[in-house]
Amino acid sequence: MHLAIHRARLLDNLSALGQIGRVAPEAGGGLDRRPFSPAERQARAFFIDQATVAGLTVLTDGAANLSARYACADPGAPTLLLGSHLDTVPHGGPYDGALGVMAALEVVRVAKEQALALPWHLEAIAFTDEEGRLGDFFGSRAVAGAHTPESIAQFLAAAGAYPDDLAAMRPLAPGGLTPDGIRTARRAPETLAGFLELHIEQGPRLEHAGLPIGVVTAIAGRRAQRIVIRGRSDHAGTTPMDLRADALLAAARIAMTARDRVARDFPEAVLTCGNMRVQPGVYNVVPNEAELWVEFRSGSPADLAAISALLREEIEAATAAPDLAFEVDEAAGHEPVALDATLQAAIRRAADACGYDWMDLPSGALHDALLLAQVTPTAMIFVPSVAGRSHSPLEMTHPGDLVAGANVLLGTVVALAKSA
Amino acid sequence: MHLAIHRARLLDNLSALGQIGRVAPEAGGGLDRRPFSPAERQARAFFIDQATVAGLTVLTDGAANLSARYACADPGAPTLLLGSHLDTVPHGGPYDGALGVMAALEVVRVAKEQALALPWHLEAIAFTDEEGRLGDFFGSRAVAGAHTPESIAQFLAAAGAYPDDLAAMRPLAPGGLTPDGIRTARRAPETLAGFLELHIEQGPRLEHAGLPIGVVTAIAGRRAQRIVIRGRSDHAGTTPMDLRADALLAAARIAMTARDRVARDFPEAVLTCGNMRVQPGVYNVVPNEAELWVEFRSGSPADLAAISALLREEIEAATAAPDLAFEVDEAAGHEPVALDATLQAAIRRAADACGYDWMDLPSGALHDALLLAQVTPTAMIFVPSVAGRSHSPLEMTHPGDLVAGANVLLGTVVALAKSA
Repeated sequence: MHLAIHRARLLDNLSALGQIGRVAPEAGGGLDRRPFSPAERQARAFFIDQATVAGLTVLTDGAANLSARYACADPGAPTLLLGSHLDTVPHGGPYDGALGVMAALEVVRVAKEQALALPWHLEAIAFTDEEGRLGDFFGSRAVAGAHTPESIAQFLAAAGAYPDDLAAMRPLAPGGLTPDGIRTARRAPETLAGFLELHIEQGPRLEHAGLPIGVVTAIAGRRAQRIVIRGRSDHAGTTPMDLRADALLAAARIAMTARDRVARDFPEAVLTCGNMRVQPGVYNVVPNEAELWVEFRSGSPADLAAISALLREEIEAATAAPDLAFEVDEAAGHEPVALDATLQAAIRRAADACGYDWMDLPSGALHDALLLAQVTPTAMIFVPSVAGRSHSPLEMTHPGDLVAGANVLLGTVVALAKSA
Repeated sequence: MHLAIHRARLLDNLSALGQIGRVAPEAGGGLDRRPFSPAERQARAFFIDQATVAGLTVLTDGAANLSARYACADPGAPTLLLGSHLDTVPHGGPYDGALGVMAALEVVRVAKEQALALPWHLEAIAFTDEEGRLGDFFGSRAVAGAHTPESIAQFLAAAGAYPDDLAAMRPLAPGGLTPDGIRTARRAPETLAGFLELHIEQGPRLEHAGLPIGVVTAIAGRRAQRIVIRGRSDHAGTTPMDLRADALLAAARIAMTARDRVARDFPEAVLTCGNMRVQPGVYNVVPNEAELWVEFRSGSPADLAAISALLREEIEAATAAPDLAFEVDEAAGHEPVALDATLQAAIRRAADACGYDWMDLPSGALHDALLLAQVTPTAMIFVPSVAGRSHSPLEMTHPGDLVAGANVLLGTVVALAKSA
């Protein structure tokens, strides 16, 4: 017997969830289910309804994460987590996070309907505040036990600005979203069998390759730098071009040359200059200061180090002239995280068994999987985003691809159960 | 007999004037004699005192321009104007404008002391508000008869914000700075014999060339463009670099390639990118909009047209990729103004006679001479600015060069009188 998810039920549930938090087109369109908002609580209620109808056990934890569980025979067995998040950015789309949660719920539901004998408890989980309205990856960070006193204090301070939302959420979080309560959300690694997250790609690679399934090999590491170039103000009409120390020109050179070298030599990496700010910023004065905001990402630690070095070379080359100087402020970054090879292999086998073509690719964006990977074997499945759009009302994934992703998630669970 | 200006008197007067409007170093230093301010009125009083001591006739006009005149025998003769301005920018230097006025006063004084028989009235003039606090070249524009109802209305609206300063200035302007009074400041072209302006270079060319005197061939024309590049926002982590429409990158390419082509092919021109503004301007989103502010100047109309064309080529090349587009807004500009060839020749002869080496050069900055050139033969003499600094507390010209400039101004007047 080849198991498959219930196509119409998944698509109906995604469609119903996609009505919750809708923003009128004239107000910008898309969905607004910012964490702790009334719309996000309505999405949680929808999840609870569906899980209850399916006869699954609904669980909450001290970080307000929300789960639906199909328990196995051995109460002491570990848990295989499947899931993602229900919250959105303002003007977000219907599948970022929501697909991973609804597909997980569908898979757990099929497992229960089929009375599958599994070596672990199977749990569909919706993590709190993935998008970081109040706390960056707040829910998955709590499950991973990765909160610090500072991250909890920051969350509570941010949440304090929304007292009504916070009060309404407290019943959904045993411990009432206090520091001690939040800490109880941690799952000890020995209680976990792994984590699988199905997610839309949020980029155009699968669509360009014409493939329905991506097997995520790593979550790319990221480094970010604010490069400040200092030059010298001069009258733009009276100062010959070869006697200037032009900060904007140096910053433009860096933006162009560093980008071109990364595009040429590091096909799996990306480098982006997201901003330039110029002083004094008028027509008739040679700029004496330019800030260039650069970030670069790669799944490979060696690539990150090499790009860092080439960027430094380009900064030094662009500021080699007299009276030009630079400073580099490193902004927050993180190292690449390789995803679990055994789980990746199981995903590939499941896709093959379902007849879906697939490709390996790194995730350039961050996900709850980044946090879970710190404590348990973790992998991700991507499905195509039309035109790569995400965090946008234009976010779109074709129904066939939504179903394909959910079937691969189910197939992976089944394959893992057989090999366990 | 070889006439020379009174060196100590000129330097003492410049030094005394340089005390008026001083800003404490802890408040940014330099001079603040913004037009119509108490400090600028004090500078006018100093000019009047010096002119009165010298037995010169003090004149004012409806635009509050201030003159000291040595009349010739023929009351119907035209007037040769010498001068510049007494106002400064905030944190300005002691010689921008002030040198041209004090040297003009010194030359008129020597002419009177020597009882020179001249074919014209000789008048040292300080034009009102050259720096454009309230009106762009307000005083020289009035003398040239180039004000419009709009430029007068703008001036009066701007001046209305400083009612005390305006009231204090009214006695210095016959007609009380009303629209009709301002119009009376116009001098009919047939009443003028020409205009000579001695000014600091405000750039580094003379210092680099090691020459004390510059003969200004033209006031450079200027074109300014706000180039808006529109691209597409994409996730900086998930969008491959070759699939982006990156507005910042296109703007950086234009800034670099246009600059490099002008530096290579137009040695007498300058091109400057003074500002870049980026949307949304964050690390992790590919910019969907970048504004680049570009200006370029040349004394040659053909060069201006050629640079405009190459800039267009570079904009089109940088936005040739899919989903990139551009708009160009032309900002205020002006055509180059060639200065009078006969007066230039007289300046060169005077410099040679004094034993000062000189070079020809265009003025990249604007001066009152731009307005006067519209109605009477006009020329300018430059002296070196140390390190090209101006509009800065660091503005500096060596005493020997100040004296050289004034002597060349005097020599030019004498040469013109002989050849008239």
